[in-house]
Amino acid sequence: MCKKCDELQIKERNNQGRREFILKSAAAVGTVAFSSVATKAFAGSFSSAGQDPNLLKPFTAKGWAARKAKGELAPFNFERRALGPNDVRIDVLYAGICHSDIHTVNEDWGKNQYPIVPGHEIVGKVVAVGDKVTKHKIGDFVGVGCMVDSCGTCVNCKADREQNCLNGTTFTYGAPDKISGGITQGGYSTGMVVKDHFCIKIPDGMDLSRVAPIMCAGITTFSPMQHWNLEEDQEIAVVGVGGLGHMAIKLAVAKGAKVTAFTTSRNKFDAIKEMGATPVLSTDPEQMKKHAMKFDLMITTVPYPFGIQNFLNLLKLDATLVNVGQLSAIEGLSGLIMGFNRQKLAGSMIGGIAETQEVIDFCAKHDILPDVEIIKPTEINKAYSRVVNKDIQFRFVIDMKRA
Amino acid sequence: MCKKCDELQIKERNNQGRREFILKSAAAVGTVAFSSVATKAFAGSFSSAGQDPNLLKPFTAKGWAARKAKGELAPFNFERRALGPNDVRIDVLYAGICHSDIHTVNEDWGKNQYPIVPGHEIVGKVVAVGDKVTKHKIGDFVGVGCMVDSCGTCVNCKADREQNCLNGTTFTYGAPDKISGGITQGGYSTGMVVKDHFCIKIPDGMDLSRVAPIMCAGITTFSPMQHWNLEEDQEIAVVGVGGLGHMAIKLAVAKGAKVTAFTTSRNKFDAIKEMGATPVLSTDPEQMKKHAMKFDLMITTVPYPFGIQNFLNLLKLDATLVNVGQLSAIEGLSGLIMGFNRQKLAGSMIGGIAETQEVIDFCAKHDILPDVEIIKPTEINKAYSRVVNKDIQFRFVIDMKRA
Repeated sequence: MCKKCDELQIKERNNQGRREFILKSAAAVGTVAFSSVATKAFAGSFSSAGQDPNLLKPFTAKGWAARKAKGELAPFNFERRALGPNDVRIDVLYAGICHSDIHTVNEDWGKNQYPIVPGHEIVGKVVAVGDKVTKHKIGDFVGVGCMVDSCGTCVNCKADREQNCLNGTTFTYGAPDKISGGITQGGYSTGMVVKDHFCIKIPDGMDLSRVAPIMCAGITTFSPMQHWNLEEDQEIAVVGVGGLGHMAIKLAVAKGAKVTAFTTSRNKFDAIKEMGATPVLSTDPEQMKKHAMKFDLMITTVPYPFGIQNFLNLLKLDATLVNVGQLSAIEGLSGLIMGFNRQKLAGSMIGGIAETQEVIDFCAKHDILPDVEIIKPTEINKAYSRVVNKDIQFRFVIDMKRA
Repeated sequence: MCKKCDELQIKERNNQGRREFILKSAAAVGTVAFSSVATKAFAGSFSSAGQDPNLLKPFTAKGWAARKAKGELAPFNFERRALGPNDVRIDVLYAGICHSDIHTVNEDWGKNQYPIVPGHEIVGKVVAVGDKVTKHKIGDFVGVGCMVDSCGTCVNCKADREQNCLNGTTFTYGAPDKISGGITQGGYSTGMVVKDHFCIKIPDGMDLSRVAPIMCAGITTFSPMQHWNLEEDQEIAVVGVGGLGHMAIKLAVAKGAKVTAFTTSRNKFDAIKEMGATPVLSTDPEQMKKHAMKFDLMITTVPYPFGIQNFLNLLKLDATLVNVGQLSAIEGLSGLIMGFNRQKLAGSMIGGIAETQEVIDFCAKHDILPDVEIIKPTEINKAYSRVVNKDIQFRFVIDMKRA
């Protein structure tokens, strides 16, 4: 594959998309909008023709943005692009607060371009679809996770690993936006325009107010279980029981694994038991020792540096600890001990679009939903403080309908 | 499995062994020694009866020992145990100098009990065999590697992972000796008594002066290739081209893999090419970049801390870098980058006895031998300095016959 050719193809595709869209939009002016009920009855592919032309144009979304590093989030009106032929426009209903949002606003992982609207655990309702969209229709409920674009042509994209696009995945916020220019803006906003491929179908009957965290916390913990083939009756450890950790527990329990959850918060013990796992206080060295060399797989969701070697020592011979939480420098591994037991430390980051669809379908099938505390957009800053101070059981979800 | 029962069993076995041995030894007193030629004709199992009784008794070996941390190695006479029923006695012919020996003498990995005789790459000739020995016979040439004892009954021992014995592997030097008491003393010595199971058959026709490094450098690099299923035509990187690294290259080339060797020593380029690999100067960032995301497997043999994340970045998606060299603290991993490409960092340490037999048989089959520089025991200290100063192409081997 020639990278240069690929880039040219992407540019060409995007340009073409815009031209087609302009032509189609012009044709659509003056047509009557379908109600979402009416459109639900509409079978097969949808054309931008026949849709409310106002929904096809660029529009102003209201978001909650940080204006500087570590700055408070405050209302910010900004423009979303006009609907392209492969785009869907969604009204955002709910947006989860992921610890990554806070790390980003704090510039823990690098500089931002401001203002920045976080949010990559998004549930929305489709209100318009581009001319070439066949995957979604108006009125559908969809999820949007950590990415909104990729080349679609490289070997990784073709292998359903859009998060590893060789031409650069476009992440949901703070990333250079190859389609609209500027940076992408996330789900703490009233509306979005997203390529159809990057919208996940939410199965019927799910409680929409609780679905959003599946889009990051869910897929991030599900993907390692798939990749390392977690099997029934295997021993799995989940380290850190917050947003990601509690999803890891629920998913692993549903897979029939024996789940041990390591937490520093004794007040989470009851909830952990209720989810079907065995809680262990990770600050108690005696408790830790009891689990030496026990686990077939471990997933650590702890979002800050911690004594990771102590946890590696709980792996069975040749087994793997997957770090999905700590994205800064990892220190203090022992080359000697890792060698002795052939311990494996791996990273993992979200999952591809197909796997994200798989996890949400798995959640629907097994009645798994994140445990959430619903807040209003005006409460985001308070929620951030509470996350940092561990004053939240599992996950905050912002009700964006109250924006 | 009950660990306590296992421990009791081991004690009982050892006690029984000693009792049996004393009885047999008594019976053997006064019998005539076979010449090694005569014993070679002896089929099946061997009895201590009929062997030179002097070879069954405890004996004084001459070793080269360190008397203090970082101390020079000097001659040291010490007692080897009497031959037990499952033991073989060997005259040591050659002993390789592994960087681990130097790390141990320098107490880089922990305190030693002194005097300590290093050496865990050993080639010897069997001069006596215990009553129950069937695996080896007098006159055989055998290798001894990094371990000389394990319980033989735990799940890991039964899975040919004696190096991971749940009741404690006895390493070849500096480890508590469960049979003889005190600490084990290694191969920089004129003779050894070793449990038959821990002696490896050296296939006929191998150049004995070059075999020793296979017992550590060989198995240590072979084992990851087996565990991670290195296949023909796969891209493998070897980082650090010393004793371990050059064996890794030869083994991987023989397996039909495409081998790239990263070194800081441009003067090793010719030798690397001659071994069938492509050399890359790892201190050149431009060269490093060219190999981004290229490798199916990487093995790093570098024995001191280095920028390991730069090498992880050369892994293909989901691939593994195996560290077999750096046994101190590993620092500076990026949680973010490891996550992004699902990079995997693993440790690995030597291999089991069956796998060690496999690598030496593989070497014999493919005409692989370490490149060595033969020295006299009196040159050990100079050789240590040269290893530290990288003034050795690949491996020193001590000719213990010159002791």
